[in-house]
Amino acid sequence: MNHDETLTPFFTPQGVVIIGASQNPTKLGFGIARNLVQSGYPGAVHFVSVKGGTLLERPIHNTIAAVPDPVDLAVILIPAPFVPQSLAECGERGIRAAIIASGGFREVGAEGAELEAECLRIARKHNIRLIGPNCIGILDNHLPLDTTFLPPPRLPAGDIAFLAHSGAICAAVGDWARGQGFGFSRLVSLGNQADVQETDLLPLVAADPHTKVITLYMEGVGNGRAFVHAAQQTAREKPILALKVGRSASGQKAAASHTGALAGSESAYDAAFRRAGVIRATNTEEMFDWAKALAWCPLPQGRRVAVLTNAGGPGVTAADALEANGLTLAEFQPETRQSLTKLLPPAASIQNPVDMLASATPEQYANCLQVVLDDPGVDSAMLIIPPPPMFATGAVARAVIPVIYTASKPVVVALMGSTMIQEAVAHFRAAQVPEYRFPERAAAALAVLSQRAEWLARPLQEPIQIDDVDKETVQAILAANKLSALPQSDLHAMLTAYGIPVPPIKLAQTAEEAAQTAQEMGFPVAMKVASPDISHKSDVGGVRLNLADAAAVAAAFGEMMTGVQAAFPEARIDGVDIQPMIADGQEVIIGVVRDPQFGLVLMFGSGGVEVEGLKDIAFALAPITQQEAETMLQSTWAGRKLGGYRQIKAGDATAVTDILIRLGQLAADFPQLAEIEINPVRVLAKGAWAIDVRARI
Amino acid sequence: MNHDETLTPFFTPQGVVIIGASQNPTKLGFGIARNLVQSGYPGAVHFVSVKGGTLLERPIHNTIAAVPDPVDLAVILIPAPFVPQSLAECGERGIRAAIIASGGFREVGAEGAELEAECLRIARKHNIRLIGPNCIGILDNHLPLDTTFLPPPRLPAGDIAFLAHSGAICAAVGDWARGQGFGFSRLVSLGNQADVQETDLLPLVAADPHTKVITLYMEGVGNGRAFVHAAQQTAREKPILALKVGRSASGQKAAASHTGALAGSESAYDAAFRRAGVIRATNTEEMFDWAKALAWCPLPQGRRVAVLTNAGGPGVTAADALEANGLTLAEFQPETRQSLTKLLPPAASIQNPVDMLASATPEQYANCLQVVLDDPGVDSAMLIIPPPPMFATGAVARAVIPVIYTASKPVVVALMGSTMIQEAVAHFRAAQVPEYRFPERAAAALAVLSQRAEWLARPLQEPIQIDDVDKETVQAILAANKLSALPQSDLHAMLTAYGIPVPPIKLAQTAEEAAQTAQEMGFPVAMKVASPDISHKSDVGGVRLNLADAAAVAAAFGEMMTGVQAAFPEARIDGVDIQPMIADGQEVIIGVVRDPQFGLVLMFGSGGVEVEGLKDIAFALAPITQQEAETMLQSTWAGRKLGGYRQIKAGDATAVTDILIRLGQLAADFPQLAEIEINPVRVLAKGAWAIDVRARI
Repeated sequence: MNHDETLTPFFTPQGVVIIGASQNPTKLGFGIARNLVQSGYPGAVHFVSVKGGTLLERPIHNTIAAVPDPVDLAVILIPAPFVPQSLAECGERGIRAAIIASGGFREVGAEGAELEAECLRIARKHNIRLIGPNCIGILDNHLPLDTTFLPPPRLPAGDIAFLAHSGAICAAVGDWARGQGFGFSRLVSLGNQADVQETDLLPLVAADPHTKVITLYMEGVGNGRAFVHAAQQTAREKPILALKVGRSASGQKAAASHTGALAGSESAYDAAFRRAGVIRATNTEEMFDWAKALAWCPLPQGRRVAVLTNAGGPGVTAADALEANGLTLAEFQPETRQSLTKLLPPAASIQNPVDMLASATPEQYANCLQVVLDDPGVDSAMLIIPPPPMFATGAVARAVIPVIYTASKPVVVALMGSTMIQEAVAHFRAAQVPEYRFPERAAAALAVLSQRAEWLARPLQEPIQIDDVDKETVQAILAANKLSALPQSDLHAMLTAYGIPVPPIKLAQTAEEAAQTAQEMGFPVAMKVASPDISHKSDVGGVRLNLADAAAVAAAFGEMMTGVQAAFPEARIDGVDIQPMIADGQEVIIGVVRDPQFGLVLMFGSGGVEVEGLKDIAFALAPITQQEAETMLQSTWAGRKLGGYRQIKAGDATAVTDILIRLGQLAADFPQLAEIEINPVRVLAKGAWAIDVRARI
Repeated sequence: MNHDETLTPFFTPQGVVIIGASQNPTKLGFGIARNLVQSGYPGAVHFVSVKGGTLLERPIHNTIAAVPDPVDLAVILIPAPFVPQSLAECGERGIRAAIIASGGFREVGAEGAELEAECLRIARKHNIRLIGPNCIGILDNHLPLDTTFLPPPRLPAGDIAFLAHSGAICAAVGDWARGQGFGFSRLVSLGNQADVQETDLLPLVAADPHTKVITLYMEGVGNGRAFVHAAQQTAREKPILALKVGRSASGQKAAASHTGALAGSESAYDAAFRRAGVIRATNTEEMFDWAKALAWCPLPQGRRVAVLTNAGGPGVTAADALEANGLTLAEFQPETRQSLTKLLPPAASIQNPVDMLASATPEQYANCLQVVLDDPGVDSAMLIIPPPPMFATGAVARAVIPVIYTASKPVVVALMGSTMIQEAVAHFRAAQVPEYRFPERAAAALAVLSQRAEWLARPLQEPIQIDDVDKETVQAILAANKLSALPQSDLHAMLTAYGIPVPPIKLAQTAEEAAQTAQEMGFPVAMKVASPDISHKSDVGGVRLNLADAAAVAAAFGEMMTGVQAAFPEARIDGVDIQPMIADGQEVIIGVVRDPQFGLVLMFGSGGVEVEGLKDIAFALAPITQQEAETMLQSTWAGRKLGGYRQIKAGDATAVTDILIRLGQLAADFPQLAEIEINPVRVLAKGAWAIDVRARI
């Protein structure tokens, strides 16, 4: 994926000017100058401050205009009110990229937001790309380039790129990494993202040969669909891990349907990440546990893991953790068991997990590891090394590293302890072998490797587009309606126009008319109150099923009118909708809503009245791909049950998928539809029928 | 709770003899001797080895008989075949407590198991209590006493007791603790538990004044109910945390009911821990994260947390994590907000999380913390300290520690980083303030404090016993039956004898008899095939509901006989059971099974045919307490729905609870019942009916 050339100066500038450089070592404006100079940045370094003078053996220019060539990146750390003027001067000086480190913008309120908008206007006028404001800048450990004001030493170098919406998280994770044995290729603090957003930087960071994995700390996303597109392209080349925070801040929204009530913004993020192939971590430790493994290990061919341990307890823990992470213990071939038998004492366990006993020597570790890796039924291995009763862990590390280094299968290490394992920790980190303190974390990392391998193995599918739809009819219905809730008959006509099967429906306004209509349709029939004001009809006695003859229909009409009017005296009631009963079949719900970040989100799950109680639901971005439709079915009981279960007859999964595709497209074609939900869809052995529909404009 | 006096010598011996002490520094028999001497153990230290000589300035006796007074604890580390003889000699010497560190027993197979049994026989004969074999011994950091062979330095001292079934886990966790800032009061490696089990030691460890929290690493439990009893008593005094591993090893068992299929041994552990007040961790890091907080913090009065941060990002992460852990962000009183406004710059956020901005001084941290802790609407606080742009974290720690120290509310710290935070880490650990690297882990620890406080606030309830049952009838039915599956009529009679309402049921053997019976009962009726060989009747067309008249009954009889015989040609068919239809009502399932560790386990949940698909179920030990019954209802949709939901009418929760109690007691009174399940129980507005029952003898 090509990146935007206007962003190039951020990572490969010819010259950098620090605006707001300070001679005072307690000021952040000194910190940036010091870091940039000490980083060993090979380009030109310039300082600007109204005070003038010299700093780190360089002149401080009084004005931006006075800065000599080459200069193509400005780092601005001056009080917020002065930033717009400085930006304009940068533009006049020909600088086309600026990092605004200063705070005091949108994050402090309306006045700051106006200042930020002003900066963006000036930047646009001069074709300047902006990172920030309110950020701690950029780090490239390989150019090298350091425009942050973080206290020394410089954050450790490595092969993980980190893009974060929070500067404090950059500082915290950066320092934490020092104790964790991984390092950064590039680090970007994005700040308020007045201009450049995380999405813009993905291709640029992926193109960096020193970056093997991209990690994201996200508090939100600017343009959801653009992010999905960019991330999906990028993730085919390099793995992307994301930690998305701000769940509790997602807020409440009005919802007229189950789908609306259930489709929180977190479901939309999950659906978006799934489509993009972005691996979602639930906390920072997890994200970098996984990043290490993705950066350093080959991908496995399957989910079968060999476990080598020198004690039973950690082996049991590992077996539990592998199972919990969806991996399996490999079954060894007879030759493997024979080789292990020769290598180990009789009391050792040569079943997986292989317990080599406490006496296991470094050579036994290495030889047994080689043997299990050679087994074609083994896709990856976990090595467990508790603190040694007999041998130093350092010696074990030295013995196994050559085996791991030459293996084409991933090996992760559970190196348990602290003081006693330091030498082994150092060896493994130097050799880029992922080591974790406990088998649980090692197992989770192996699972992510499998997840990545499986995602790459599946070809990227395009969302399904269908042509056999009748847009004009829907257009006409929507144009003719001034209501926020459409009558059932109109909703049914819209579904029909999009090829979604709907049983015949007819409005009746009197008991006689209802009985007559039912007679024409054939008994039994269903009767539902027709009212734009009543969303959940069955709650107020507005649904009667299985009416068997004309008398029953007439009686039900009267009862329903009385009952609904009593429950809802304000409601406009247009009469009742009569439909033939679709008996039998499984009940599912299919709905679609608009997420503010990611647009259309489809929901599928167990239908009926208990949707929100059972919460047997799955989400995907709409329009969906074939894979996503299948995943929605597989990940819900409602979907699995379509295959038949005990005396529940199998239902037509293809017909369900077809409705998912068509409802998604209906919503995509008509942005004025805020929510549409079919509940239930009744799924028969052949075909599926939309029984009850609601929509919000 | 009083502990067993025979166990006293393990922790307060007058004199210890090491049998198998070695002069060779590479041998474990040297390691034990060295550790015991270097530990500073104040009692007498003796060595025994057939080789004789001296070791660490003490004589090595050739025989156990030669060991002088005082000696009341033996530590045995000699080859397994020699252990029984040594044990006998210990007995003759008057030693009544022994730790067998040697391996080569049950863990290596049948021969070893026999050797272990022999050791136990000898121990019983001489009234010797045994820890081990196949363990690494005992550590008491305060007596002090160290009988392990772990390489020096000695494991760090502290206030957490650790009992573990795995020696390697003891070694690993012990070493890991050195880097984590917590330490041990007592550590026991339990090994094969030939005699002394984790349950026996709970009271002894709880009585130790240096122990504030008890942590358990469990691979199983010997006597489940004894453990629950001991743990429940102990947990009233001191918190118990458990990590239970070996999930995947729990294996499969034959099951004739949904309850049997769903009630895995992990559900039984969960139910047991819940009753005992044992807090279950899912991994080692979690267990000790929580142990630190429980050891060092006062308990909170509620779940409202104040968060203090100097940056937005970590505050958002904290808010998410608190919500995910069932805690809430406290709402500050107006006075609190006023005070914060005075203490902080205008751009700071004085809403919770309080963002004091990057410029926050140590004094601001301390003062703001005092202010939020003084708010009566705040139950606990989380302090977030990323690496400092302006102030050293050490200074922040020094400023806040006095506030935390004098507070009656718990305060935990998210101290983010590594190198930059070392000084603060040291201060907080010295002051026993729990610090975590990330807000997520700090939030989980706060949640555990709340969980503990809430458990202590609830009075311990006794399981409910009922008297109005007719044991004789059930006894007679069971005595008369030789089948593994009882006929419905007998099962119904058994339920009736235990006060569980069952609709009338009558067996009919011909179509005419069925129609006649139905006529007498009144229509509509249900018909079910009566067969001891068919467990899930509806799967084979063996259930017909809502039969409205005699003709329908007669027709259904014929169809059912044909259909069932076709599906199950081998089945013995006794006829059909006729029952009046109990229409309406909610369907729930109530079942009980026997767990090999914990005995009777009750299940409650969403009933019908989809039980195993929906998995809306909860478990509790039977007989249950009132609280447990309520918790089962609250933790399932089936139970919550009994309160009414939309047009689903409310059901009689009391009647459901009553069936839970009575079914549990029926199973408790008749151990020959392996499983009983009622599915569905039909819950009406008043009362609940057992509709279909199955049992396994």
